[in-house]
Amino acid sequence: MNLPALIQKKRDGSALTKEEIRYIIEGYTAGHIPDYQVAALLMAIYFRGMDMEEILSLTRAMLESGATIDLSDIPGPKVDKHSTGGVGDKTSLVLGPLVAAAGVKVAKLSGRGLGYSGGTIDKLESFKGFSVEMSRQQFVEQVKNIGIALSGQSKELVPADKKLYALRDVTATVDSLPLIASSIMSKKLASGAEAIVLDVKTGSGSFNGSLERAIKLANLLVSIGESMGRRTLALVSDMEQPLGHAVGNALEVQEAIACLRGKGPADLSTLCLELGTHMLTLSGAVPGREVARQKIQQVWQSGQALEVFRQLVAAQGGDPRPIDEPALFPQASIQREFRSPKTGWISRISAREIGLAALELGAGRKVKGEPIDLSAGIFLPHKVGAQVKKGQVLARLHSNRAQAFGPASELIAAAFEIGSQQPEPRPIIWAEVDAAKVKKQPSSSSN
Amino acid sequence: MNLPALIQKKRDGSALTKEEIRYIIEGYTAGHIPDYQVAALLMAIYFRGMDMEEILSLTRAMLESGATIDLSDIPGPKVDKHSTGGVGDKTSLVLGPLVAAAGVKVAKLSGRGLGYSGGTIDKLESFKGFSVEMSRQQFVEQVKNIGIALSGQSKELVPADKKLYALRDVTATVDSLPLIASSIMSKKLASGAEAIVLDVKTGSGSFNGSLERAIKLANLLVSIGESMGRRTLALVSDMEQPLGHAVGNALEVQEAIACLRGKGPADLSTLCLELGTHMLTLSGAVPGREVARQKIQQVWQSGQALEVFRQLVAAQGGDPRPIDEPALFPQASIQREFRSPKTGWISRISAREIGLAALELGAGRKVKGEPIDLSAGIFLPHKVGAQVKKGQVLARLHSNRAQAFGPASELIAAAFEIGSQQPEPRPIIWAEVDAAKVKKQPSSSSN
Repeated sequence: MNLPALIQKKRDGSALTKEEIRYIIEGYTAGHIPDYQVAALLMAIYFRGMDMEEILSLTRAMLESGATIDLSDIPGPKVDKHSTGGVGDKTSLVLGPLVAAAGVKVAKLSGRGLGYSGGTIDKLESFKGFSVEMSRQQFVEQVKNIGIALSGQSKELVPADKKLYALRDVTATVDSLPLIASSIMSKKLASGAEAIVLDVKTGSGSFNGSLERAIKLANLLVSIGESMGRRTLALVSDMEQPLGHAVGNALEVQEAIACLRGKGPADLSTLCLELGTHMLTLSGAVPGREVARQKIQQVWQSGQALEVFRQLVAAQGGDPRPIDEPALFPQASIQREFRSPKTGWISRISAREIGLAALELGAGRKVKGEPIDLSAGIFLPHKVGAQVKKGQVLARLHSNRAQAFGPASELIAAAFEIGSQQPEPRPIIWAEVDAAKVKKQPSSSSN
Repeated sequence: MNLPALIQKKRDGSALTKEEIRYIIEGYTAGHIPDYQVAALLMAIYFRGMDMEEILSLTRAMLESGATIDLSDIPGPKVDKHSTGGVGDKTSLVLGPLVAAAGVKVAKLSGRGLGYSGGTIDKLESFKGFSVEMSRQQFVEQVKNIGIALSGQSKELVPADKKLYALRDVTATVDSLPLIASSIMSKKLASGAEAIVLDVKTGSGSFNGSLERAIKLANLLVSIGESMGRRTLALVSDMEQPLGHAVGNALEVQEAIACLRGKGPADLSTLCLELGTHMLTLSGAVPGREVARQKIQQVWQSGQALEVFRQLVAAQGGDPRPIDEPALFPQASIQREFRSPKTGWISRISAREIGLAALELGAGRKVKGEPIDLSAGIFLPHKVGAQVKKGQVLARLHSNRAQAFGPASELIAAAFEIGSQQPEPRPIIWAEVDAAKVKKQPSSSSN
């Protein structure tokens, strides 16, 4: 096949065939097709979009570019969950134990974070000794024994995505729905679960921006999953303000533990209950959504979920004592407070600026491979809608870098808006997209 | 500067600044900026276009990426001419001698052809011994002595364009008016003439396709030239059918000689008279267009122009005898005829298919550096509008490749349409764009 002709075909608005897409992805992964031709093609896809058939072909070609995980030696239904990411998003830490305690196996592969704060693995490393290095045998045994295991992402899964993502990152082509959707779903499909629940974020702290765009993405993700034979459901949830009160690795783990104890913030608890209910329902382990919800609530209130969390930490070599003695978590050497400049109602806490402030304080990575400061972060005692007085604490900043507080405080000042009227409350869940819904949707996508 | 941010800026529809464009062109020429980022940027430019200020900045940055030619040691006005290319386009062979004989110096740098048939240099190599290898000193001396010299293109001129064009060629980004216009004009500006006449082709044998698009390109070219301090004018001329009757190197030289003898085809003669008149007028050597036209006609009819052509061939080492003994030109070993399948009027001769047929016969290059068969080509005795009988010869094919006649004949069959009614005549010149006209035009361009 002739690459310039394929680029031109997409440039001029025609759909690429399954064979053409496979040829490009295979050739690029193998190194026969150069970066510059793929870069031009990616920009053409940015402008022209892809129809559903192209998106499926792309997802399948990426999936088949590497190894896939076979979970069939783990008995019972397996369910996976993915969040498009945001600020203060510690749902996986709560959900994994909830769903495992409710009897559905969670065999999870997780990556490290890039951006505002760490990923799930980074967060769990707040427990001294916690490790995701384990053999395939150990992984399966642990899932069988305690219902949950968390392993690092294999380099053999979806190599095409790794190469494509690196190229998109430096060519301003990250921000394309067909490319985002195929990237997410090829990795989820490679991970082997039969059911997939997706948490698509919308708002300032997400990459999706508008609600309309997030719903579009949710539709695409569910369409891909269902077309590839996985039961798939997506919630579109709010990321205009950070989730919960805590942002930063050890701080988020503490909030997750509080949540498992039934003392979590309302937004986090609601989102976990909903996601957990869907995970249980979709797995097929329970007869319906109401039973699933009751089951989740029961293991939550009984403390069984917290017990699974404790077992998970211990099974993977972590010292679980901080669960009961939070002072043992990594502590930042400096804490400072950011106070309200005036009296009024909090009308906005921009997750984006809070995330950038956390990054300044050391909670995240600016470039891949950077070490992370597990103790760094921000605690926000009040959420949007709260009434505050001038001088009241709006944020507690934790860091080991004295010079970071200046820039972080500026970002936090920019994140907050204090109004003279109580704002309308924002829902935590904006939309739910399931198989029945996507069947009624149009099937192509530009940006 | 941050390349992904610059790509994104253009992707999102904003104009790049002069400094940003210079940074990109300098960095790319020097090899600091990788192909893949420029490829993504080119595709974004394809979709978003560029405004006039961006196009000027791009042209200037490309021009300044290498050396420029200084013609100031050649006394008198110097004028240059550029054609966007087509099938059977031998105007340069006629125009150079016409203008030089009329007293305006023609110091021309020419490239080799890629595509349908050879470039001006290739064509002149139909004269045994003809060479464009000469020192700077020899070049200037020859222009002084006989009014015209033809040199090969220096590698030091506009290196940015060479690199960019090679990348555009393999990333489906050739076909963008701002990129085409800046590429053409950066090379013309580097070549040193004070006045530039452009022949922008429209129709099936041109890359511009529609008349509207050709006029857009003509406007851009003239705007750039005038903004950079050169007197510039463009004609939009017809390339729906091949120009004249002959396609292929030695065949075209013979037609050019016939034309210089006053026995050329009407379309070629008209176009050369018009272009020559504009070249003379724009050079400032004559007081106005009517005087210029009379001067051109006078040197044409008197045989002075043919004499300059003869001198040019001899001065550059060529054996001029074939001018009077055409049998000495390279001759193809096989000639075949293509006959009309029916009686009627020729309503179409697609220049594109004729060009591709000539390429099959060996008259052009499919890839850079390929040798060319100077004897190969096609002679078309009748033009659009002629009445022909079934079995009458429509084309004479010349080649040394027996196996080429099959595919070439198929292309020729596809090129011809024979109708039952006499078609409307097409003009040879569709539009004229000068400095006064572009001042009234909108100043931005997409594709």
